[in-house]
Amino acid sequence: MAKLPEILKKTIVAQSRFFTVEALHLRFSNGVERHYERMRPSTRGSVMIVPMLDADTVLMIREYGAGLEDYTLALPKGALDDDETVQQGANRELQEETGYGANQLTPVKAMSLSPGYMGSRIQVVLAEDLYSSRLDGDEPEAIEVVPMKLSALDEWIWSEEVSEGRSIAALYMVRDILRARAGVETDEA
Amino acid sequence: MAKLPEILKKTIVAQSRFFTVEALHLRFSNGVERHYERMRPSTRGSVMIVPMLDADTVLMIREYGAGLEDYTLALPKGALDDDETVQQGANRELQEETGYGANQLTPVKAMSLSPGYMGSRIQVVLAEDLYSSRLDGDEPEAIEVVPMKLSALDEWIWSEEVSEGRSIAALYMVRDILRARAGVETDEA
Repeated sequence: MAKLPEILKKTIVAQSRFFTVEALHLRFSNGVERHYERMRPSTRGSVMIVPMLDADTVLMIREYGAGLEDYTLALPKGALDDDETVQQGANRELQEETGYGANQLTPVKAMSLSPGYMGSRIQVVLAEDLYSSRLDGDEPEAIEVVPMKLSALDEWIWSEEVSEGRSIAALYMVRDILRARAGVETDEA
Repeated sequence: MAKLPEILKKTIVAQSRFFTVEALHLRFSNGVERHYERMRPSTRGSVMIVPMLDADTVLMIREYGAGLEDYTLALPKGALDDDETVQQGANRELQEETGYGANQLTPVKAMSLSPGYMGSRIQVVLAEDLYSSRLDGDEPEAIEVVPMKLSALDEWIWSEEVSEGRSIAALYMVRDILRARAGVETDEA
């Protein structure tokens, strides 16, 4: 693998309440120099939860996205509060967005958003052994919780309403994990 | 599904050479009002290509991402030029980033990035029947092309180097499409 480019300079070129744009002056290991812009990475971690109500039922949420100006069907997610662990943050977001908590919270994989110009990473957490529990979030309207069957993922994944790349990735990864686990249990039986 | 919120006002609150941040003042159908920030959607479409060198070998690329400040292993992708169709743009990016063109280019699904604060959509394109052909891109250094086996996706998808959500989603979707196609062909044999 190539040696990492040297960062010659970082400059803030635009800033709003929530976003900061940085210009990066880079020198690649072959001597070529480039100027790039990127969103400054958030210092807070974030989590995406795959809540399994039973071995085949995943809870998704239908929520308005101001970026798309439309409702989408996606997995619950959110930013960690200060001092929260991944599991704590995942269980809080889960209770705020679905009305369930989870006794079992398993980190699955960290994913990036768009490596070229964003530093964001999100930790996918498999949530199992759910119990009813609601926490108040900051949502402007009630979030619709939509139970979907992982065994029929091949059919509904093509719906236009299911569009977010990271949700699609997390659903497939968890389907494979649960299938492998069921396979092992079947083999052992 | 709830009625779409009314957009009361859109204001540009920050701008750099490549990025524009907009503030949105929204009124939800229940009367609740909110102010959000988002990245202004690009007017250009974009494509992510899943290039199959043979029925099991997908070509990935190892490239530096200034957002992550690291190299990642992901699928080729890029923005469409003016007047390019999805297929034309996919075939150009494929030739620039991998040194292959494709005789068969099939749109698979449009994915969003982060619906809450980004409007970006990317069209996933399955590229088959490849031929050697290189076009010059604007890359600062040679891109490393890495052939991977879809049949072993369950093993290498967990590598830290494979992190981009949309690439992971596209790989699983294409694996399922090709498996279904092989299954049909087997059933018909």
